[in-house]
Amino acid sequence: MMLSAGDGGPSFTPRVVLELASDTKEEAITWLLSRIRDTQYNGGAELLVEQLGPGADAQEKENPNMFLVGATWQRLLSGAEDLGLFKEFNDGSMRAFTCANKYNFKDFKGDGDSFLSTAECQYIIKHELDTLRAKDETHVPGLSRVKLYPGKSVIRRLLSKGILIQVFPLHEKEELKRLSFAWYKKVKLSFQPLEDIRHYYGEGQALYFGFLEYFTFALVPMALIGVPYYLFDWEDYDKYVIFASFNLVWCTVILELWKRCSSSLAYRWGTLSRKKAFEEPRPGFHGVLGFNPVTGRQEPLYPNAKRQLRVYLVSLPFVLLCLYLSLYVMMIYFLMEGWALSVHDAEPTFWTGILCFIPSVLYAVVIEIMNLIYRYAAEFLTEWENHRLESSYQNHLVLKVLVFNFFNCFASLFYIAFVMQDMVLLRQSLATLLITSQILNQLMEAFLPYWLQRRRNKKMVRKIHKGKTLEDQELPLANQVRLEADMSTYLGTFDDYLELFLLFGYVSLFSCVYPLAAVLVVLNNITEVYSDAFKMCRVFKRPFSDPATNIGVWQLAFEAMSVIAVVTNCSLIGMSPQVKAYFPDSDMQLILWTVAIEHGLLAFKFILTFLIPDVPKHIQINLSRLEFESREALKKKRALRGGKSWKPRRSPRPPSEEEEEEGGGRADAR
Amino acid sequence: MMLSAGDGGPSFTPRVVLELASDTKEEAITWLLSRIRDTQYNGGAELLVEQLGPGADAQEKENPNMFLVGATWQRLLSGAEDLGLFKEFNDGSMRAFTCANKYNFKDFKGDGDSFLSTAECQYIIKHELDTLRAKDETHVPGLSRVKLYPGKSVIRRLLSKGILIQVFPLHEKEELKRLSFAWYKKVKLSFQPLEDIRHYYGEGQALYFGFLEYFTFALVPMALIGVPYYLFDWEDYDKYVIFASFNLVWCTVILELWKRCSSSLAYRWGTLSRKKAFEEPRPGFHGVLGFNPVTGRQEPLYPNAKRQLRVYLVSLPFVLLCLYLSLYVMMIYFLMEGWALSVHDAEPTFWTGILCFIPSVLYAVVIEIMNLIYRYAAEFLTEWENHRLESSYQNHLVLKVLVFNFFNCFASLFYIAFVMQDMVLLRQSLATLLITSQILNQLMEAFLPYWLQRRRNKKMVRKIHKGKTLEDQELPLANQVRLEADMSTYLGTFDDYLELFLLFGYVSLFSCVYPLAAVLVVLNNITEVYSDAFKMCRVFKRPFSDPATNIGVWQLAFEAMSVIAVVTNCSLIGMSPQVKAYFPDSDMQLILWTVAIEHGLLAFKFILTFLIPDVPKHIQINLSRLEFESREALKKKRALRGGKSWKPRRSPRPPSEEEEEEGGGRADAR
Repeated sequence: MMLSAGDGGPSFTPRVVLELASDTKEEAITWLLSRIRDTQYNGGAELLVEQLGPGADAQEKENPNMFLVGATWQRLLSGAEDLGLFKEFNDGSMRAFTCANKYNFKDFKGDGDSFLSTAECQYIIKHELDTLRAKDETHVPGLSRVKLYPGKSVIRRLLSKGILIQVFPLHEKEELKRLSFAWYKKVKLSFQPLEDIRHYYGEGQALYFGFLEYFTFALVPMALIGVPYYLFDWEDYDKYVIFASFNLVWCTVILELWKRCSSSLAYRWGTLSRKKAFEEPRPGFHGVLGFNPVTGRQEPLYPNAKRQLRVYLVSLPFVLLCLYLSLYVMMIYFLMEGWALSVHDAEPTFWTGILCFIPSVLYAVVIEIMNLIYRYAAEFLTEWENHRLESSYQNHLVLKVLVFNFFNCFASLFYIAFVMQDMVLLRQSLATLLITSQILNQLMEAFLPYWLQRRRNKKMVRKIHKGKTLEDQELPLANQVRLEADMSTYLGTFDDYLELFLLFGYVSLFSCVYPLAAVLVVLNNITEVYSDAFKMCRVFKRPFSDPATNIGVWQLAFEAMSVIAVVTNCSLIGMSPQVKAYFPDSDMQLILWTVAIEHGLLAFKFILTFLIPDVPKHIQINLSRLEFESREALKKKRALRGGKSWKPRRSPRPPSEEEEEEGGGRADAR
Repeated sequence: MMLSAGDGGPSFTPRVVLELASDTKEEAITWLLSRIRDTQYNGGAELLVEQLGPGADAQEKENPNMFLVGATWQRLLSGAEDLGLFKEFNDGSMRAFTCANKYNFKDFKGDGDSFLSTAECQYIIKHELDTLRAKDETHVPGLSRVKLYPGKSVIRRLLSKGILIQVFPLHEKEELKRLSFAWYKKVKLSFQPLEDIRHYYGEGQALYFGFLEYFTFALVPMALIGVPYYLFDWEDYDKYVIFASFNLVWCTVILELWKRCSSSLAYRWGTLSRKKAFEEPRPGFHGVLGFNPVTGRQEPLYPNAKRQLRVYLVSLPFVLLCLYLSLYVMMIYFLMEGWALSVHDAEPTFWTGILCFIPSVLYAVVIEIMNLIYRYAAEFLTEWENHRLESSYQNHLVLKVLVFNFFNCFASLFYIAFVMQDMVLLRQSLATLLITSQILNQLMEAFLPYWLQRRRNKKMVRKIHKGKTLEDQELPLANQVRLEADMSTYLGTFDDYLELFLLFGYVSLFSCVYPLAAVLVVLNNITEVYSDAFKMCRVFKRPFSDPATNIGVWQLAFEAMSVIAVVTNCSLIGMSPQVKAYFPDSDMQLILWTVAIEHGLLAFKFILTFLIPDVPKHIQINLSRLEFESREALKKKRALRGGKSWKPRRSPRPPSEEEEEEGGGRADAR
């Protein structure tokens, strides 16, 4: 998509858009652009940047401070090397890209065009922008309130001060069209185009969709067993023992297998062995200016002890209080329900029949409201805890939200199952919760943002007086950029994973009493694929790619859930009339046996986690071969250097690289 | 200890002794020596080697084929670099030693004398000998039955064929005297000289003694609580709830803290961040000759699936069968004991009183015999499983022996505690087991080998007609070597750790019913330090050092024990009359509460394991600083290289190393 200058666009392929506040001083803009354009040698980012021309039908209200950023291929390749990007080598293995070796990489043709995917190019440019550091400026020229110090990331400071409104990567219309066609526009039985998704959105997104697909397939056997169970044992709640045992094994096995699956994907995509870059402090992090003990760079420091105090003395009690509140609300719900039922039983009329539904509805609404409020509180608290790294912020946030959501969604089910021991009510509640939450979710997640988007787009389109949308091939670049700048920002996979986590909970914990749960979740996941794909392609701005190795903290969360599932299913089995029949005399015997078996299963589960290697054998071999080779190369280099300078007994002939090998292993032994 | 040639010793500092079979052909010996002496460039080991002269009073029966191996300082330093040995840098951090940088390492003076400890020198020489590989020889010259192939380690092949009888490092008399004086010859309250132990025996040994010391100190609070408990509540078995709760917390906390302690030690000793070398196949490993997929070297290959089949279809059933047998023996013991008691009760005489003791004694003897037989069986089976790596062999052996020993030692206690629910008998059995096993152990471990050693030494000394022992400063080298060659071989820390593991089990599982247990174990550990130190210094050959990072699989074993301890202590608490008094009406309520609290504690334990970082903060910072620096250096190198060859926009002036830094961070920002 090399555009000519006459198009109103830049003379290079634009990759990333910077939007500055419309009232930014000219001096600051000039300085920023010169810093971005300056050579790396002078401390610049050495990128190409140009101002976006006015749209086809320019409006007065348009923000003029939109900038397109691109880079030469040389710059992109050296950036890829700096980032340690893994690409496929000629021999099929994945290796860290180095410019010196570039011709040995597969698909490297000419000077690199199409070697890097657009997502990779955008990621490189983002990284280079992020690591554009202040030299000796004490503030941004023309903006004395935006303080700088040597080594501070300029872009992060501008973002946190609101001068830089947003940085986002551009959609690639051709590729997007192809992707969306392969992904969701045709309804047929096939796998998702994971490679294309990874190519376009990066590894983090692709892993989410991979996990969604894996989870759906993993549910199929359960759904297949569930249907006959549902059909033949419908009113016979006693026969769930086999199903619960199946659940037990299932939830352990699929998670272990996913780990292998995930590392296979990560290996194929070259993120498995990539070393993580040192994380910069997140934009909101504040503290006294000091020197980072690791990098030696100047940056804000905040004592860890203070953060720990905030976590343990404020956040933890707050979360516990919220859990208590949620428990309290649940108890009120059960009281109300009991009261409504008693009123209905005493004098059943149409109105008392409706009255019976009111507590459930009220409870559902209250739960949703509590979740929302809690989410804001959790974000506020986690922000206030002042974590240095984005990853640590995310982990704390996920943990907080997870615990509360788990409690809110499952507390009532646990209460019904183990305190009230009412399996009929449990089944009803589970069905209601599952179906309503799915419907609500699909609405909230895809259709609402889409509808909002359409309304906004229409306004935009009316403004441009042309009626063109993003799908239009003829849309000029300036208009495309403004259209995309207006789209909602994709906030990451958090909510998507959370939804899967809760669904996994419903299935693994209680599906033995409601065998249709797995079928419902399978159906939900299939629509989820389409709605998520749709929202990624049409509703949201393109996100920057995120080179993830695995699903991160969510793996842990799912594993915790599977442990809870073992305990729950054992208890359900112990409570079943089928099992109780074996211990007609003594409840104590029954409980002791249940507990013993449960402990055995938990121990077995942990042993299984040890026994099944997380990384498949052939990938392990590949990884250690690469490491071995790099070490041997290092040894050779040392031997070469050593031979020149000090090794006394060495023969005077300088050893050639081929012949020199440590310990007498010969080249023909390979 | 540079010896003159006139002493009958070599003209270099001898480090390691090779003992070949006395009937080895001259041709083979000549070949081996020439390979060892040959330059690395020609595929040799580039070491110094000389035949040991005859002793001061040579006997005819003496083996003439003893060889002393040493190396020049240059060779040792280059070996240290190859091995990636970590040494202290000038700035106090630990870094991989490189010859190019040698003057920047602390304690590096002149050409390196005293820079490497003797243990390190010996380890380097052993590594160089081990990696001396066959070139194109198809067999050892003169020994056509000792087959070779290109890349095969010569020393390992000679060892496995019995040509090479042993390879052992020499004691350093001066150092040994100093060490033994500081370690066990003075009785005073002080820590062990861990640094000296590490210096002399290497990190693996030092970590064992460090753990022994840590474990002893960790037991002190428990012993302090135990004594008043014992004195004031002696006959009141009901009051053990608080003690059991203390146990619960204690066994979790001390293991978590040990991890931090251990990584501090490993960091100080430079093994924490050292990368493990690629392990060679262990000497006994056999299979079809093929190419290793990682190194590309020729070596025997054995399909993993076959090994798995052997493990799961033979070893696992065998272990289970043995456990069943052990259970069976235990039941016979209880039957016999019951019968003896009934005989005694029916007609108590002196002889029936003695009869009562017979079952316990018999059972103890049978247990010991079973342990011994099982140990041989386990070694045979693990050998037969044909593991490629020594570490994997060790893990499988440890697992097998551990499970059986645990079962043998604790099954009867569990039976008494939870099936018979007889706390008085439990206390008695625990006391008997603990005291007798301690006495037996100390005898078997130090005094028996010492006595055997003395007998052998006397014979030796008689042969030499001089009455000199290893402690004699005047002992000529030839005699010292022959004396040491005759000492028993130290078989590693396996049995020492196993003993600590069982003691840890006694204390953490059941000490609440016998509070003196901790006191006994503390006393045992103190004598253990002395007897272990004594046997290391006087009884055994010096072992090669082993650069361990942590206590390895034993950490896992101790953690598994602590999980079992939580479950056991919870059950004991649930069974105590004190707690039962709170649930006068319903046993079921009691059990459910106990189980719930136990699950809570287990969950808490796992959360704690996550929350407490395994490596202390300041060490983490140091490690990441080193990694950061090496990455920055790599970037600089790339930038330099890049600047010369292809970066197009770079200014023509060649960038100096000081100024060139990625992303504009300036030198003064450090």
